[in-house]
Amino acid sequence: MRMDINCDMGESFGAFRMGNDYEILDYVTSINVACGFHAGDPMIMRQTVKRAIEKGVKIGAHPGYPDLQGFGRRNMDFTPEEIYNMIIYQVGALRGFVDVEKTELHHVKPHGALYNQSANDSAKAQAVIDAVYDLNPKLKLYCLAGSLIAKLAREKGLTVFEEAFSDRNYNEDGTLVSRSNEQALITNEDEMFEHVKGILLSNEVRTIQKKVIKINAQTLCIHGDGAHALQFARRISELDGFLFD
Amino acid sequence: MRMDINCDMGESFGAFRMGNDYEILDYVTSINVACGFHAGDPMIMRQTVKRAIEKGVKIGAHPGYPDLQGFGRRNMDFTPEEIYNMIIYQVGALRGFVDVEKTELHHVKPHGALYNQSANDSAKAQAVIDAVYDLNPKLKLYCLAGSLIAKLAREKGLTVFEEAFSDRNYNEDGTLVSRSNEQALITNEDEMFEHVKGILLSNEVRTIQKKVIKINAQTLCIHGDGAHALQFARRISELDGFLFD
Amino acid sequence: MRMDINCDMGESFGAFRMGNDYEILDYVTSINVACGFHAGDPMIMRQTVKRAIEKGVKIGAHPGYPDLQGFGRRNMDFTPEEIYNMIIYQVGALRGFVDVEKTELHHVKPHGALYNQSANDSAKAQAVIDAVYDLNPKLKLYCLAGSLIAKLAREKGLTVFEEAFSDRNYNEDGTLVSRSNEQALITNEDEMFEHVKGILLSNEVRTIQKKVIKINAQTLCIHGDGAHALQFARRISELDGFLFD
Amino acid sequence: MRMDINCDMGESFGAFRMGNDYEILDYVTSINVACGFHAGDPMIMRQTVKRAIEKGVKIGAHPGYPDLQGFGRRNMDFTPEEIYNMIIYQVGALRGFVDVEKTELHHVKPHGALYNQSANDSAKAQAVIDAVYDLNPKLKLYCLAGSLIAKLAREKGLTVFEEAFSDRNYNEDGTLVSRSNEQALITNEDEMFEHVKGILLSNEVRTIQKKVIKINAQTLCIHGDGAHALQFARRISELDGFLFD
Repeated sequence: MRMDINCDMGESFGAFRMGNDYEILDYVTSINVACGFHAGDPMIMRQTVKRAIEKGVKIGAHPGYPDLQGFGRRNMDFTPEEIYNMIIYQVGALRGFVDVEKTELHHVKPHGALYNQSANDSAKAQAVIDAVYDLNPKLKLYCLAGSLIAKLAREKGLTVFEEAFSDRNYNEDGTLVSRSNEQALITNEDEMFEHVKGILLSNEVRTIQKKVIKINAQTLCIHGDGAHALQFARRISELDGFLFD
Repeated sequence: MRMDINCDMGESFGAFRMGNDYEILDYVTSINVACGFHAGDPMIMRQTVKRAIEKGVKIGAHPGYPDLQGFGRRNMDFTPEEIYNMIIYQVGALRGFVDVEKTELHHVKPHGALYNQSANDSAKAQAVIDAVYDLNPKLKLYCLAGSLIAKLAREKGLTVFEEAFSDRNYNEDGTLVSRSNEQALITNEDEMFEHVKGILLSNEVRTIQKKVIKINAQTLCIHGDGAHALQFARRISELDGFLFD
Repeated sequence: MRMDINCDMGESFGAFRMGNDYEILDYVTSINVACGFHAGDPMIMRQTVKRAIEKGVKIGAHPGYPDLQGFGRRNMDFTPEEIYNMIIYQVGALRGFVDVEKTELHHVKPHGALYNQSANDSAKAQAVIDAVYDLNPKLKLYCLAGSLIAKLAREKGLTVFEEAFSDRNYNEDGTLVSRSNEQALITNEDEMFEHVKGILLSNEVRTIQKKVIKINAQTLCIHGDGAHALQFARRISELDGFLFD
Repeated sequence: MRMDINCDMGESFGAFRMGNDYEILDYVTSINVACGFHAGDPMIMRQTVKRAIEKGVKIGAHPGYPDLQGFGRRNMDFTPEEIYNMIIYQVGALRGFVDVEKTELHHVKPHGALYNQSANDSAKAQAVIDAVYDLNPKLKLYCLAGSLIAKLAREKGLTVFEEAFSDRNYNEDGTLVSRSNEQALITNEDEMFEHVKGILLSNEVRTIQKKVIKINAQTLCIHGDGAHALQFARRISELDGFLFD
């Protein structure tokens, strides 16, 4: 057992603080770097890329909708062509910072509403896939485990990392419980740890209907803002075994 | 005689129209594509890159200050590090669009206040130069003829295209007459044509002090919005000879 | 017969040009001024307010979604509270310019996707209504003729101007033909004139199903960018009779 | 002795956190609310206004430059007309929120680079003054103690609150030590308390040249982010006596 553990990173903007602490870099194997549309700016992107390299963590782009005030979480009506182009732009921008450090971009993970809206809409999914593929067919795509976009991306020839979430509850059909449902988030730490253990050790999650289902995931998304979250991240990373490499 | 003739391009933003018509592509050899900070957006960048490729025109990045409302023309206090990073970001973003078309970025030309503020300030100039060099030492730098940045960029090892302007008057010391001076712009078409002929055929300009000085330029910047400007662009391109290649 | 004729105004942004020419002010009785979110900026708002006062045209606020690149036309998921607050903000900002000219704001007309999304969604409609009412219960609300928001606004005690469009086709149930339908816009000038005559003289429109239906409108929205559109606006204004007051 | 004690407020933006905690409202008599250009958004403005009303704290507008990424602290070249209009816009927007709560706006305090650039530049100062006066001649202007703008504003007929800073060192001529100087900020809490006591009790500050000078201030600006700062704010408020009203 050994799964990729990813977290979102570089989500501040100018003097405005947001998101995970850099300490989380000790407990993950890859990060998703905000690219300036929903969060992040050139200064923060540069610094985030440098820190990730220092820690030997793989770097991915985390493009989102151009909605800074809404943190890219609001659904917006974009055409597939607009989605394609906003991904080219943002991944290109991040790749600039990766290039000047003479390293490689590892993956692309759509953010927030772009992640959700492209997961099971074939036209939007295809726009994301085409943008990633056209930029570089070797880029991995991080996307929702069991989603349409995962299937379509594999058909295109991309390497897909299907993603599970450490703090999200699942429905019986393998979809995430909607954030509008009060059971969306797992907040109890013990429950969260059991949930993560299921994903890491048995490829299973227990749904809110109490049924255990299989989940096919190659990467696990965790959070790391606050001392408590960092401790929890450490526990997960130890479970996954990579801290002892 | 044969000089590069460049123009700014892709300066619209969403539904907001700005800048040169695509027809100008018939009369120039290179363009400077706005990168989303002072003008341009992912849709327009994509379309502009495609049109340039169709016409066989060389593509450059035109990064500017993050001041859409002021079109990047207002002086702003940025640190050299901020300038370095905003160039990496914007040129990286444009390079995404160039990459997916399997072509190459030719040059970088700073825009507006960034162009002016980096021309003769050594720290800002160095930030621009380092960003371009770090992205790719083969990228050409377009900058003000006779400026400090031209000298420093050559010392760094970059290929420099010193730039003259078709519609700007010059001072005796080779600097541009400031836009705050009413003589800044050449508006009479015959005078403009004489001015351009001097640059293209004799490497000379007649200053507002009526003295003729030498100007060392490898590229000439022209404008092409409006039918009149397009005709003028045609005359210049014929003078330069490349229309008959 | 005498109907209010309105047009959108002040839709440029910095150096970026957009929307109706100021000449249209001669042919309308009220304008809707963009408030900086989907278009407009403080310089343009000031100038637009001054021009309207010179021409004796009534001034309304035209608040929209914070989506400059999409011109406020993209659907976005906002909560009613977010809608309420974005209207307070934008109308407040415009009222600043109206106040310094010692005049009064006449109305509020939501723009683009905000107009459409609040027309028949009761929670969004109520947010718009409450914001307008709380700012000043004497402000008129311009909204889609026959919509739910018109009904709810009257129940609240606001004066409502139901709006018809000079260039939009209608369905049998009185709704506008969606912009995604190719019959959405009336582009033939003679047809448009007949359409407008029906609205102004008989309170009727001929639907795309060829059936004539009643339309209850107190204001007609027209466009005026381009010489042709201005002539057409003149014809409409003569028909309505107010040019001869 | 009893001086107005103010702090900046409402400086978050969407999900991005910034600035003073609401707890500081217990220890100040007035606040300066960010208006959406350098910080703040409609949701945060609404909430901040409501909290201030609950605590009986006077509400002022804190307009700044349109530079969210730079938090309005970067110098930018604006014309006086642009400054006038950006103040009308921002103060108007905040007044919308104040109006719907049936309360009054107390003052305007320019923010960051706008504060500094207008302090002693007569054209910029006049633009600020005219905007405030035109909106409402009863609005107070908060500005740098001893500055040109204070003098000009009084000549115009505005009530001026000259401002001292709890954490800034002063030069012998009464100006603030520049932030580029390492002595700009007072960081030692005991020194800061002595500094504040001098201002509140004796209208005096000890300059970095060790000379004691008179300072004519009607308001003192304090900060309140972090538990430590809140305790300090409490000490200052007790010194000023208003906690026991």
